[in-house]
Amino acid sequence: MSSVERIASIISVGNELLKGKTVNTNFAHIGRMLTFAGYRVKYGYVCEDTPEGIAETFKEAVKHSDLVVSSGGLGPTFDDITVESVAKAFSMKLVKNDHIMAILRNHYTSLNLPLTKEREKMAYLPIGSHFIENPVGIAPGVIIDVGACKVIVLPGVPSEMEALLGLARDQYAFGGVYCEKSIVIENMMESTIAPEITRIMKERDGKVYIKTHPLNSENILPKIEVEVSSYGSERTDCAEIVKSVLAEISDSALKLKSGKK
Amino acid sequence: MSSVERIASIISVGNELLKGKTVNTNFAHIGRMLTFAGYRVKYGYVCEDTPEGIAETFKEAVKHSDLVVSSGGLGPTFDDITVESVAKAFSMKLVKNDHIMAILRNHYTSLNLPLTKEREKMAYLPIGSHFIENPVGIAPGVIIDVGACKVIVLPGVPSEMEALLGLARDQYAFGGVYCEKSIVIENMMESTIAPEITRIMKERDGKVYIKTHPLNSENILPKIEVEVSSYGSERTDCAEIVKSVLAEISDSALKLKSGKK
Repeated sequence: MSSVERIASIISVGNELLKGKTVNTNFAHIGRMLTFAGYRVKYGYVCEDTPEGIAETFKEAVKHSDLVVSSGGLGPTFDDITVESVAKAFSMKLVKNDHIMAILRNHYTSLNLPLTKEREKMAYLPIGSHFIENPVGIAPGVIIDVGACKVIVLPGVPSEMEALLGLARDQYAFGGVYCEKSIVIENMMESTIAPEITRIMKERDGKVYIKTHPLNSENILPKIEVEVSSYGSERTDCAEIVKSVLAEISDSALKLKSGKK
Repeated sequence: MSSVERIASIISVGNELLKGKTVNTNFAHIGRMLTFAGYRVKYGYVCEDTPEGIAETFKEAVKHSDLVVSSGGLGPTFDDITVESVAKAFSMKLVKNDHIMAILRNHYTSLNLPLTKEREKMAYLPIGSHFIENPVGIAPGVIIDVGACKVIVLPGVPSEMEALLGLARDQYAFGGVYCEKSIVIENMMESTIAPEITRIMKERDGKVYIKTHPLNSENILPKIEVEVSSYGSERTDCAEIVKSVLAEISDSALKLKSGKK
């Protein structure tokens, strides 16, 4: 792990996720992005879209995170209540943002539709927060500082979430280094190489993380992926460690196969 | 909601989920199954495969659940530590299960492989727990009663998790009723029907839950799915409520389109 470890949490808001109606692809996308930005994504939460569910979850997440990224609950319907619930959780007043209100007015006027209370809601942001204009939809992303923790609240529509997350990364410079590389080993069971992995990780004293993924079941001809990753402050050091550990694993695998281990 | 509401939580164990390497399809599968068995799936967690991460998460989940289902971390590698971490969390001793040990011995002997410490680990279960034999793999599912909360610990390989979850459902009779039905409304924006949805849900006094899902973006010809669901004790009552609410929504949508609302 890097000298200054930065912890991130992901919150997914929505009953449709808990009920299994929707597979949570947003979670993986956010996890991937934060990991490669050098964060250790340590906690993940899925909560109902109720005021209490959302408030409880955000309060819990900020307690042990440098960064929290949520998706879901920013749209114009009655159950899109993430922003107001987060504001309540941290005792922040909601204030009308004139810039967002103008965008909403333009949008709905052009569609010949009234600006209902549910639609206007998207222009009310916690006092002191920042917003990122939505380049593919209507609801803006909201950035809130809660003590030392940055909270990034994004919509749940994947295209909107992805676009806003990219903009947030650029704007708030999530600078950090993470390297990850895998090799595939044929004719090797996960459990055969396990003691070697344990030994190598111990020798590297927490500087690398090694994970094996079986690519088929433990049958006569098993196949595994061995993934090595490392966090660091310099990309070259980080890549060097990963490379040398992969070489060591390949070597161990060969010895195990030839019966020399 | 039903007269006796039963709360479930889902725990997904694994760094690969937090890092976004794997999309968490298990979560959706478990959520779907528990929902249709009449559970309100209220909390979801994703945790690292560290002893502390797992222990903390299980302790938190059992606090407010009647049922906890986890997946991940039951295999034969160094980072498969869910069972031992859960045992530690609830101060339960691990004891060797002779039946599972015999299965492991048979399995690895037939593959001409030694029964390493990492492989033997799968036969150590928390004292007082039950197990379900794995019909598609090796690691058994583990059922632990923690006070009034039932904890079901399953492997992360989807085919194994799904098979064991089905067996657990049959064995522990997750009896409950949940109905869900959707209609698709063309030429209707989510935000246009939102006030009607709010009104209908209020009138039904918590007996139904209505959710809208936009099927495309809020453009000139929007399309939404309206989903109505209800928990209950009798399947016929439950289905009846859902049916009548869907009819009411269709009617409202027609009136909105013809300008009568």
